[in-house]
Amino acid sequence: MPAMRVPPADGRLVLAMDLGASHLSVALVDGAGELYRPQAFDLTPSPDPVKILSQVISAARCLLTGQRDEVGRIAGAGIGVAGLVDPRAGRVLSASNLGWANVDIGNVLTGFLGLSVRVDNDARLATLAEAIHGAGRGCSDLLGLWIGTGIGGGLILGGRLIRGASGTAGEIGHLPLIEDGPACSCGNRGCLEALAAGPAIAAAGREALARAKRKGIRSALRELCGDDPAEVTSRLVAAAADRGDPEARAIFVRAGAHLGAALAGAVNLLNPERIVVGGGVAGAGEHLLAPARRKLAERALAPPGGTVRVVAARFRDTGVLVGAGALVLGDY
Amino acid sequence: MPAMRVPPADGRLVLAMDLGASHLSVALVDGAGELYRPQAFDLTPSPDPVKILSQVISAARCLLTGQRDEVGRIAGAGIGVAGLVDPRAGRVLSASNLGWANVDIGNVLTGFLGLSVRVDNDARLATLAEAIHGAGRGCSDLLGLWIGTGIGGGLILGGRLIRGASGTAGEIGHLPLIEDGPACSCGNRGCLEALAAGPAIAAAGREALARAKRKGIRSALRELCGDDPAEVTSRLVAAAADRGDPEARAIFVRAGAHLGAALAGAVNLLNPERIVVGGGVAGAGEHLLAPARRKLAERALAPPGGTVRVVAARFRDTGVLVGAGALVLGDY
Repeated sequence: MPAMRVPPADGRLVLAMDLGASHLSVALVDGAGELYRPQAFDLTPSPDPVKILSQVISAARCLLTGQRDEVGRIAGAGIGVAGLVDPRAGRVLSASNLGWANVDIGNVLTGFLGLSVRVDNDARLATLAEAIHGAGRGCSDLLGLWIGTGIGGGLILGGRLIRGASGTAGEIGHLPLIEDGPACSCGNRGCLEALAAGPAIAAAGREALARAKRKGIRSALRELCGDDPAEVTSRLVAAAADRGDPEARAIFVRAGAHLGAALAGAVNLLNPERIVVGGGVAGAGEHLLAPARRKLAERALAPPGGTVRVVAARFRDTGVLVGAGALVLGDY
Repeated sequence: MPAMRVPPADGRLVLAMDLGASHLSVALVDGAGELYRPQAFDLTPSPDPVKILSQVISAARCLLTGQRDEVGRIAGAGIGVAGLVDPRAGRVLSASNLGWANVDIGNVLTGFLGLSVRVDNDARLATLAEAIHGAGRGCSDLLGLWIGTGIGGGLILGGRLIRGASGTAGEIGHLPLIEDGPACSCGNRGCLEALAAGPAIAAAGREALARAKRKGIRSALRELCGDDPAEVTSRLVAAAADRGDPEARAIFVRAGAHLGAALAGAVNLLNPERIVVGGGVAGAGEHLLAPARRKLAERALAPPGGTVRVVAARFRDTGVLVGAGALVLGDY
């Protein structure tokens, strides 16, 4: 099976944008995946798309101002959005963290920027970036998994980017794992996202903190957060795990096991060659990935489970931009 | 997204074979999916591949004997096997019901039949048959699900048959659904197959029978099996449900809900346009499919869940043969 083809490195550039729930990044990207003048901004989420899109447009325009030479080399623009996207229509179907439904972002941005704009899901673009320039290079069958506030994913199967019938393929965060498990952002219970994303890990960290305080046990977690539950984030739990805090490590072991069970299901269903895991929560590294690999090995069928490798993503915060560049230059 | 392309109906024929755990079927298939002289045999499973393959070879040779005119039109042979298959190598990696591991069936059959032989997974070929000639026609993104003694599946995404990195993609029966649920044939617990395949439904039927006997309640299930637990199969439970037996209906409602939860996970991950459900247990029809659709609607994300249709397969017992024909003629 052929690996994903690579876009030509022919000097063309892409205006790349990454629109998250609370952040916006923009940069120019070339065919080698290099970023030029990347800029990141905080966003206040707003259900009014005009407020958000005006920030996107001014950030994009600032990037281009006074760069006449580079502007002449721009082949188009690409934007990754944290939500369900219809890439063919250039439309955001729903972005629960932004509070959006049915926003025709492609046409609006095309109109204001004077460039053809391709819109896609952010996790899918980050997966594309890993497939072409990162930890998934050379794979024909790749699953990307991005764990932050939510869990998104991207699929490359048979050397092709998979979008599904209406453009929303990849939502691995909503594999059902525990019947009547904890409530999920999607309205159901026991989805992977409700068990292993940032909020689940932070909540488990706050429970561990309360237990330690109640029992009068000193812990790295207590020290790091100054005994303040409001300070407990998944990142802080990871820092406590780094210092050897057994409760913090156990939190990642449990989350990793849920992740591994979901990966086993996906591996049985899709038989990928490699799985790339990224996003803020994946910053916990082996605290999360080692138990995920163990559970995956235990639960997956023998041939697909024995051949798949689970690796950390190459790109930390810039994968969506790199992927948006590849999307436009490679026309995937 | 383009629908799956259709093989040419140019008069060529395929020698098609379907090798299950306890049955063997052979036929000639043309480009329109028509079968000529289909024949079915019972097989005694044997871990010795020679015993099984000699039956396959003699059935195939019988089919061709004295059919000189048709033999001249045969483009090649295709066989679907109930197990994990590496289609590129023509090898059965493992077939737990046959008790096989690593059997180079492609080369053996090619040698004995004097035809080039393509080997693939039976559920994948049945899905291909539905995509080209059956209930999945016109779809670019199709999930096929075959529920019998086990649960297999096939994937068509972006208009292409998906096989995965080592050829085993589609094993939807081993999506984990219930942590510490009932034991599965794969050695794990709580997989879809352990909750909704034939043996799970028969086991639930035997429990219902025991309860009814203990409480002295008359029921359609009791009548149909003559109070003999050994007579309770998933087919008999379906017959009892047809007669209105509330316990039998409840068994399918529970199995259908598990099926729907697995479909929700697959729909979120893959965003198919249609899902085709077939196999012996699917003969229960709406007893199984109606609760599956309800749970799917409840659990899937809004856009992919709202657009997907769950339909019954067109082919009952002949899908693998029709798919084997399409495989060779269409070179998928």
